[in-house]
Amino acid sequence: MAGREFALIDKLQGMQRIGRGDVGLGMGDDAALLDPAGRKLAVSMDTLVAGRHFFADVDPADLGWKALAVNLSDLAAMGAEAAWCLLGLALPAGQRDWEAWLAAFMTGWQALAQLRQVVLVGGDTVATDGPLTLSVTALGLWSGDAVMTRAGAQAGDGIWVTGSLGDAAAALDAAFAERGMGGMMADWSPEERHFLEQRRLRPSPRLTFGRQAAALGVRAGIDCSDGFLADLGHILEASGVAAHVALDALPVSAAVRRMAGPDPQLWTRWPLSGGDDYELILGVAPALDEGLQARARALGLALTRVGEVVAPGRDLPAGSVQLSWQGSVIPLPAQGGHEHVF
Amino acid sequence: MAGREFALIDKLQGMQRIGRGDVGLGMGDDAALLDPAGRKLAVSMDTLVAGRHFFADVDPADLGWKALAVNLSDLAAMGAEAAWCLLGLALPAGQRDWEAWLAAFMTGWQALAQLRQVVLVGGDTVATDGPLTLSVTALGLWSGDAVMTRAGAQAGDGIWVTGSLGDAAAALDAAFAERGMGGMMADWSPEERHFLEQRRLRPSPRLTFGRQAAALGVRAGIDCSDGFLADLGHILEASGVAAHVALDALPVSAAVRRMAGPDPQLWTRWPLSGGDDYELILGVAPALDEGLQARARALGLALTRVGEVVAPGRDLPAGSVQLSWQGSVIPLPAQGGHEHVF
Repeated sequence: MAGREFALIDKLQGMQRIGRGDVGLGMGDDAALLDPAGRKLAVSMDTLVAGRHFFADVDPADLGWKALAVNLSDLAAMGAEAAWCLLGLALPAGQRDWEAWLAAFMTGWQALAQLRQVVLVGGDTVATDGPLTLSVTALGLWSGDAVMTRAGAQAGDGIWVTGSLGDAAAALDAAFAERGMGGMMADWSPEERHFLEQRRLRPSPRLTFGRQAAALGVRAGIDCSDGFLADLGHILEASGVAAHVALDALPVSAAVRRMAGPDPQLWTRWPLSGGDDYELILGVAPALDEGLQARARALGLALTRVGEVVAPGRDLPAGSVQLSWQGSVIPLPAQGGHEHVF
Repeated sequence: MAGREFALIDKLQGMQRIGRGDVGLGMGDDAALLDPAGRKLAVSMDTLVAGRHFFADVDPADLGWKALAVNLSDLAAMGAEAAWCLLGLALPAGQRDWEAWLAAFMTGWQALAQLRQVVLVGGDTVATDGPLTLSVTALGLWSGDAVMTRAGAQAGDGIWVTGSLGDAAAALDAAFAERGMGGMMADWSPEERHFLEQRRLRPSPRLTFGRQAAALGVRAGIDCSDGFLADLGHILEASGVAAHVALDALPVSAAVRRMAGPDPQLWTRWPLSGGDDYELILGVAPALDEGLQARARALGLALTRVGEVVAPGRDLPAGSVQLSWQGSVIPLPAQGGHEHVF
């Protein structure tokens, strides 16, 4: 296809320091040639637009990391092993030296790609009269039945969450407040602010743990990107079940815990409804609890039980959540999830 | 990943009338689950921006066809069988009823997808403050060694082209002229104009013939999207060879032949340098000529020998073309290929 107003993408091949034996042909031809070697594929695509999914003045290295991370997180949620990526970039015409920008973007991208041994095998760079727009396709591999879906949860499963929730949402609140765009600036220490901002800008896709959970037999998973409540809702809807969740059981960082304290409003605002966590939410049969916890411990990854999957009923239809705070049922927030992600 | 300001993409699954047994899970989860069943992959991604790669007022059904076609053409150029696609759409916020637009877009997309048995397995729809932007990832399958690349041409190969060249470029010239954006309006009959416009808007990716050529042993291929001269140049550069090409041997439609007649300027403007043909350019060892021609005949597809690959020399370095017109060498045009594709 034509339209490569920038030939930049062709330079990316040489910037990679990763090789994979299963890449027959990388960038530079009409298509990449890849060898899954008998394994199955998991494929995900995400589109990100400046001013809507990230601040237009974002550090390009942070954007490179995050654009890859959010896609790898989708593969982690399925329990797949990340293998290959494609990157489509629409760059605002004439705005700046895109070659330098792209070099910076690739330092962030490569830092994560190298960690996960993911190779960029294709894509293109075109000009746009609008905002910077990225599209990333991530391809992962898996074998046998070891895969997790949104539809795999069953009544009796525990609901488990990796890492901590709400850090990115708290950081985004601060970033919006600083820019006079709403949000909420809490009284963070400089160290807390830095920690939260890193969590927002450099999320860690839980690929290793996702793969181990799927291999162990976990069959329900999603990554927490739209907010815990919204993403858990996707599992519950697809599985035709409901859930009990303890708001005060949600895993939070020391920073979020210090600030949110005993205030269920802030627990609702950040860990329950904030987005951009890129942690995994799993539905886990009790027989797998011990094995799963052992694997999380071995990885040094926090793993927290926050509720359980229940059969739907008249008061709690399929797809819905009963929320509690300190043992008492409380109403759900009016709106779970959020629309604009930075 | 978040950012689905439009949940439209989730509706596309139900709009498809194609099923494939190798799709374990299509749209609606974090990733699609696909089974190449031991075969290898060819993967291509293209990004298209309104106002640069297509007119913003394009009929959405035509855009749907073409967005898929240009990606399938990349797979055809490798000799792969098209299998699965992902579609990322950034839609201008608040401009119109995108649900109706997307339904129309999908009628064109589906018409081609059904013909080729390609299933849409993922993607997303987000809002943008800029022009409509599409990103399509196409995944194809292939086996054994049956694949064509830009690097596979050898001295002594014939250069063969499918179909006709220059129709889309002639139509684009007329479309630009109509819009007062430059271009060139020739004295086309209404029937010619319609034919050319269909060639521009509804290109036919040469998937079947590409697969047959690769299976037969053809090892050099590219699709003609940037213009014949530019795309042949990609093969010559990647293969480290040069070529002799007869401008008057380029295959043209009756309409282009009637208008261009004996004028090498128009032959240069449309079939040689115009883009958007989505025909295949192949480098073919002479031993394969007969078999390849028989396959083209069986498909009712024109196949024309337009020149030959030669070893590079002092006067004709690797990557370069010696052009002739009625048996005499003529200079190359100043610029091959084009930057903006509509």
